Amino acid sequence: MENILTYSPYIGLFGLLFAGFIYWRLVKRPTGTDRMREISEAIHDGAMAFLRKEYSILVLFIVVVASLLAWKLALATAVAYLAGAACSILAGFSGMKAATRANVRTTAAARDEGQGAALLLAFNGGAVMGVAVASLGLIGVAVAYMILFGKGNFGALSSISGFAMGASSIALFARVGGGIFTKAADVGADLVGKVEAGIPEDDPRNPGVIADNVGDNVGDVAGMGADIFESYVGSIIATIAIAATLVVGGDAFNKLSAGSGADGSTVKAFLTSLPIMLAAVGLVCSFLGILSMRVLKAINPAAALRYSTFIAAALFLAAAWFVINSGVVNGDIWYAVLLGTLVGIVIGLITEYYTAAGPVRRIGLASKTGPATNIITGLAVGLESTALPVLAICFGIWVSNQVAGLYGIGIAAVAMLATVGITMSVDAYGPIADNAGGISEMAGLGPDVRKITDSLDALGNTTAAIGKGFAIGSAALTALALFAAFNQTVIKANHGQEFLIVLTDPMVVIGLFIGGVLPFFIGALTMTAVGKAAEQMVEEIRRQFREIPGLLEGKEGVKPDAARCVSISTASALKQMILPGVTALVAPVVVGFALGAAALGGMLAGATVTGVLLALMMSNSGGAWDNAKKDIEQGKVEGETKGTEAHKAAVVGDTVGDPFKDTSGPSMNILIKLMAVVSLVIAPLLTI
Amino acid sequence: MENILTYSPYIGLFGLLFAGFIYWRLVKRPTGTDRMREISEAIHDGAMAFLRKEYSILVLFIVVVASLLAWKLALATAVAYLAGAACSILAGFSGMKAATRANVRTTAAARDEGQGAALLLAFNGGAVMGVAVASLGLIGVAVAYMILFGKGNFGALSSISGFAMGASSIALFARVGGGIFTKAADVGADLVGKVEAGIPEDDPRNPGVIADNVGDNVGDVAGMGADIFESYVGSIIATIAIAATLVVGGDAFNKLSAGSGADGSTVKAFLTSLPIMLAAVGLVCSFLGILSMRVLKAINPAAALRYSTFIAAALFLAAAWFVINSGVVNGDIWYAVLLGTLVGIVIGLITEYYTAAGPVRRIGLASKTGPATNIITGLAVGLESTALPVLAICFGIWVSNQVAGLYGIGIAAVAMLATVGITMSVDAYGPIADNAGGISEMAGLGPDVRKITDSLDALGNTTAAIGKGFAIGSAALTALALFAAFNQTVIKANHGQEFLIVLTDPMVVIGLFIGGVLPFFIGALTMTAVGKAAEQMVEEIRRQFREIPGLLEGKEGVKPDAARCVSISTASALKQMILPGVTALVAPVVVGFALGAAALGGMLAGATVTGVLLALMMSNSGGAWDNAKKDIEQGKVEGETKGTEAHKAAVVGDTVGDPFKDTSGPSMNILIKLMAVVSLVIAPLLTI
Repeated sequence: MENILTYSPYIGLFGLLFAGFIYWRLVKRPTGTDRMREISEAIHDGAMAFLRKEYSILVLFIVVVASLLAWKLALATAVAYLAGAACSILAGFSGMKAATRANVRTTAAARDEGQGAALLLAFNGGAVMGVAVASLGLIGVAVAYMILFGKGNFGALSSISGFAMGASSIALFARVGGGIFTKAADVGADLVGKVEAGIPEDDPRNPGVIADNVGDNVGDVAGMGADIFESYVGSIIATIAIAATLVVGGDAFNKLSAGSGADGSTVKAFLTSLPIMLAAVGLVCSFLGILSMRVLKAINPAAALRYSTFIAAALFLAAAWFVINSGVVNGDIWYAVLLGTLVGIVIGLITEYYTAAGPVRRIGLASKTGPATNIITGLAVGLESTALPVLAICFGIWVSNQVAGLYGIGIAAVAMLATVGITMSVDAYGPIADNAGGISEMAGLGPDVRKITDSLDALGNTTAAIGKGFAIGSAALTALALFAAFNQTVIKANHGQEFLIVLTDPMVVIGLFIGGVLPFFIGALTMTAVGKAAEQMVEEIRRQFREIPGLLEGKEGVKPDAARCVSISTASALKQMILPGVTALVAPVVVGFALGAAALGGMLAGATVTGVLLALMMSNSGGAWDNAKKDIEQGKVEGETKGTEAHKAAVVGDTVGDPFKDTSGPSMNILIKLMAVVSLVIAPLLTI
Repeated sequence: MENILTYSPYIGLFGLLFAGFIYWRLVKRPTGTDRMREISEAIHDGAMAFLRKEYSILVLFIVVVASLLAWKLALATAVAYLAGAACSILAGFSGMKAATRANVRTTAAARDEGQGAALLLAFNGGAVMGVAVASLGLIGVAVAYMILFGKGNFGALSSISGFAMGASSIALFARVGGGIFTKAADVGADLVGKVEAGIPEDDPRNPGVIADNVGDNVGDVAGMGADIFESYVGSIIATIAIAATLVVGGDAFNKLSAGSGADGSTVKAFLTSLPIMLAAVGLVCSFLGILSMRVLKAINPAAALRYSTFIAAALFLAAAWFVINSGVVNGDIWYAVLLGTLVGIVIGLITEYYTAAGPVRRIGLASKTGPATNIITGLAVGLESTALPVLAICFGIWVSNQVAGLYGIGIAAVAMLATVGITMSVDAYGPIADNAGGISEMAGLGPDVRKITDSLDALGNTTAAIGKGFAIGSAALTALALFAAFNQTVIKANHGQEFLIVLTDPMVVIGLFIGGVLPFFIGALTMTAVGKAAEQMVEEIRRQFREIPGLLEGKEGVKPDAARCVSISTASALKQMILPGVTALVAPVVVGFALGAAALGGMLAGATVTGVLLALMMSNSGGAWDNAKKDIEQGKVEGETKGTEAHKAAVVGDTVGDPFKDTSGPSMNILIKLMAVVSLVIAPLLTI
C-alpha cells in the first residue's frame, strides 16, 4: 500500500496533465461574435491585472516572512513556506485563466448548442481549477514529505508546516482582497446602475459591469481556489503532524494499531503517510467523477452536477476502505473517513435548506412589511442556521475521536477534502455561468440565450451550497487537527514537559476571549472595506455618466471607461486587504510570545468557535437574502414581482448579504486556519 | 470586620425602608390632569397585568424545578431556590410599581416645576428599584449564608447556589418575555402608526401606544431589574463558592492570606464572607450616591446622573480598602476590587463612544446612500465595538488573577456590582423619562413640556450605556467565577479526583461548540419571536383603525381599545418566552449528564465567549442605529432631516436595532449566567 505514497507525485503530475488537456480542449471551442470576444478579453485582462498586482504585493511580503522563518526557525521551513505560497499562486493563476476563457465559450455554446453543451463547458472550466488545486497540493505535500521525513525521521515536522503556512498566507490575502474587489464592484455597479440610473443588470452602458464580472473571477474563482488549496494542504499536514508526534506504544498509538501484527515503525510510517495516500486516491476518484459528467449531462443537467460529486465520494469511500484495511492499522479508522465525507455532505444539505427552502420563503414574506423586517428575518435565519451544522461537526468529532482519537479528527478533515478535485470544479462552475450570463447581456444576445445562462447560474447557487458546506466543515476540523498538532509540538519542543491547555487557567480564558473577538474584528474590517471601496466605485460610475456625453442614452459608439473602474476596485481592494491579513498573521505571534503558549491555545479555540459560527451565519443569511430576492423576481411570493415595495425591500437584504456571504463570511475559514498554522510553525519557539 | 457580615441583613432591611421612604415621598407628588392620570393608570394596569400573568406561569415552573431539586439534591437547595425566585419577583414588582407611579409625576413636574424637579422625580422612581434590588439580594444571600454555613461549615455549598439559580430562572424569563413584549409593541405601533397612518409617535389615536409605554416598563424596568438582581446574587455566590472550596494551606490559599498572621480558619471565614461584606458596604455607598443627587441636580442635571455614580464608586473603593486591609488577608485583593470597578466604567465609556460619537456619524452618513449601507455600516460598527470591551475584560481578568487568583476574578465581579443600588437607579431612570414623554404627548401638554421630557430621555440613553457596561462586564466575570466554582465543586463531589477541562479533549471541544452556538440559537429564537409578536400587533392596530369609526380622524370622544393591544402583546410574549427559557435551563443538564462534566465545562466557556460578544455587538449596533436616526432628526447630518430618504434609511436601521438592543442582546447576559449557575447546582451529581 505504501506504493501509493511513492506514486502520489506522479498522480499529481498526471492531474496537471489532465487539467492541461481539459484546458486545451476548452480553448479550441468557438468564442462567438467579435463583441463577445471583446467583452471577454476585457474581463480576462482585468482579472489577470488584478492577480498580477496582488501577487506582486504578496511576493514582497512573502520574502520578508520567509527570511524571518529562515532566521528564527530553519531554512527548510522557509523553503517549504515559499513552495506553499508558489503552489497557491500557481493554482490561482491557472484557475483564473481557465475560468476567463470558459465564460465566453459557455455563452457561445448556450447560443449555438443549447443548455447541455453550455453546462459541460462551464463545468470543464471549473474542473481545470479543481484538478489543478488538488494536483498541486498533492505534489507539494508528497514531495515535501519525502524530502523532509526521509525514512521515518520526523524531526523536520515544523518545516513541513511551513508549506501549509505559505498556502494560508496567500489564501487569506486572496480571499480578502478578492472578496473586497468583487463586492465593491457589485454593490457600486448596482447602486448607480440599477437603483439610480434604472438600467438593467449587466447593461453595457454601466462602466462598472466589467469590474463586476472581473470580481466574480477574482473573488469566487481565485479567492476560493486559494482558500480550498490551503484547507486541503492544511488538513493533510495537520494529520501528518499528529501522527508524527504519536509515541509508539502509547495508548493513542495502540488504539490505532490494534488488530494489526505490524511492528511500531511500520505502523507509524503508515499513519503519517495515510493522509497523502487518501488525497491521492481521492484525486483519482475526482478524475472519474469529472469524466462521469459527460455521461450524466445527457440524462439531466441539473442532477449531473450533484451526482458527479456523489459518485466521486462513493468511489473514494470504497477505495479508502481498501487502503485502510490493508492490515497495517486498525480498520476502524475508516469510520473517520466515512464521517468526514458525510459531515461535509450533511452541512451542504443544511446550507441548501437554509438558502433555498422554508427560511427563504420566510424572508420573502417578511419583505412585504419593508426592509426592516426583511433584515431582521434574514439575520434570524442566519443565526438559526448555525445550530445544525455545528451539531453535525460535533457528531463528526465525536465519532472520529471514538474510532481513532485526535488522529481521527484529522483524517475526517482529509476525507472531507480528498475529492476536492470534483467539489471545487462544481464550485468554480458557478462564477463561470454567472460571467456567461453577463457576457450574453452585454453582447445583446437576446432573451433565449440569457434564459439558458440564467438557469445555469441558478443551478450554480445550489451547488455552491454543497461547496460551502465542505469549506466550513473542513475548516473546523482542520483547525482542530492543527490545534492538536500545535499542542503536541509545544510539548516536544519543551522535552516532553506536561502542557495542558486548561479552561480554568485565566491565561487560557484570556486567550479564548481574544481569539473569540478576532473573527468579529476581521468581520468589521472587511465589511467596512467593502463599504469604502464601493463608495469610490459609486463616485467613479456617477462621474462617467455625468462627464461622458451620450453614455447613459446609449448613443452608438459611445463606450464607458470600464478599465478605470477595474483599476479603482483593484487599488482599493489591495489597500484594504493589508490590515485584516496582517492582523491574522501577527495575532498568534504576539499572543504566543507575550501571553504564552497556553493563552495561544485558548486563542485558537476561541477563534475556531466564533469563526465557524460567523462563517455559517454570514454565508447562510447572505445566500438566503439573495434567493429571497430572486423568489420575488420570479413571482414566487404572492402578489409581488420586480419593482414592488417588497422587491425593493428584498434588494436591500441582498445588498447587505453581499459582503456577508462573499467577503467577510469566507474570510473566517481562512482566518482560523491561518492562525492555527502560524501557531504550529512557531510552536518550537514557545516555552511553557 | 466580620461584624459587617452580621449587620448585612440589617443594612438590607434599612435599604428596604429607604426604598419605601422614597416611594412614599414619590406618591405624594401631584399627578397633573385627569387625562394624565387616566393614561398613567392604563400603563400601570397593563404593566401589572403582564407581571401577574408572567409570574403566575413562572410559579408553576418554579414549583416543578424546586421539586426536582428537593428530590435529586437537597431540601435546602430547593428552599434556597424558592427564596431566590421570590426575591427576584419581589424586586421586579416593587421596581415596576415605583416606575409606573413615577412616570406621570415626572410629567407633572416637567409641566409645573421644570427640568430639575422632573429629573429628580424620575431618578427617585428608578432609585426605588435600584435600592430594592440590592437590598433584597443582600438580605437573601446573607441570611442563606448564615443559615447554611453556620460556623465555618461549608458543606451546604451547592444549596446556597440554589438561591442564585432561583434568581436566574426568573431573570431569563423576565428578560426574554419583557424584551419580546416591549419590542413587539414598539415595532407594531411604529409600523402602523408612524409609517402607514403617518401620525406622530405616542399619538393618542394609536391603539398600540399604551402597550408601547407598558413595554418600556416590563422590558427596561422589570426585565432589567431581574437581570441585575441575578448578576448581583450570582457574583456574590460564585465568589463564596470559590472561597469555600479553597484548601487551607494550599498555594491559592497562601497567596490570599500572605502577610497576615491570622490562622487558617479565620482567613477562610473572612474570604467566604468578604463578597457579602463588600456588597453591604457598596449598598451604603449607593445610599450616599442617591442622596448626593439632591445637591448635584442644582448644579447641572446632566452631570448629576453621571457623577452620583462616580461618587458612590469612589466611596466604595475607599471603604473596600479598609475592609480588605483589616489584617486578616493579603491587602492586594483590593486591586481586584479596583479593577472590577474600573473595567465596568471603561466598558461603559467605550459603549458610550460607539453609541454616541464617531461610529454613529458614520452610520448617519451611510444612510445617505440608503438602507442597505446604513445596515452594513451599523453591523460593522457592532462587530468592531466588541474588541475594546473584550480587551478591558481580559485586562481585568489578568490583574485580578495576578493579585488573587480565581478568587480575585470573583471579587472583581462583586465589586463591579457592589454599587448596583445607584447604577440601577440611573438605568431605571431612562424608561421613566421615556414614559413621561409619552404621557405628555398623549395628554396633549404641548411642546414646552415635551422638550423637557425629551431632554431627560436623551440623557437616559447616554447613562444607560454605562449601565450596559456594568451588565455585560459583570456577566462575563460572574460567568467565569461560576465556572471556577463549578470546576471545584465537581472535584469535591468526586472526592478530590483530578478534573481538568483540557482543550485538547475532543469532548471539551464538542462542549465548546455546543456552548458557542447556543447564544446564536437563542438570538434567532428571540428575534423571530419579536417578529411574530409584532405581526399580531400590526394586524390588531390595523383592524382598530379600520373598524372603529372616527378613530383615525381624531373624532372627539372616540378612543382606541388599548387594553386589547396590551393583552395581545402579553399573550404573545408569554408564549414565545418559553422555548428560549427552557432551552437555557435544560441545555446544561442534558450536556452534563449525556456528554459528561468536561463537555459541560467546555459548553460554559463557549457560551460565555460568544454570549458576551453577541451581547456587545447587538447592544452597541442597536444603540448606534437609534442615535444615528436621532442625529438626522436633529439636523446633525448635513442636509438631512425628518422625512428625507436618509431619514427613512435610518428608521430601517433603528427598527432592526430594536430587537437587537432590547430583546436578543440583553438575553445573552442572563443566558450565560443561568447556564453556569445551573451547572454549579448540578455539579455534585456529575461523575468525572
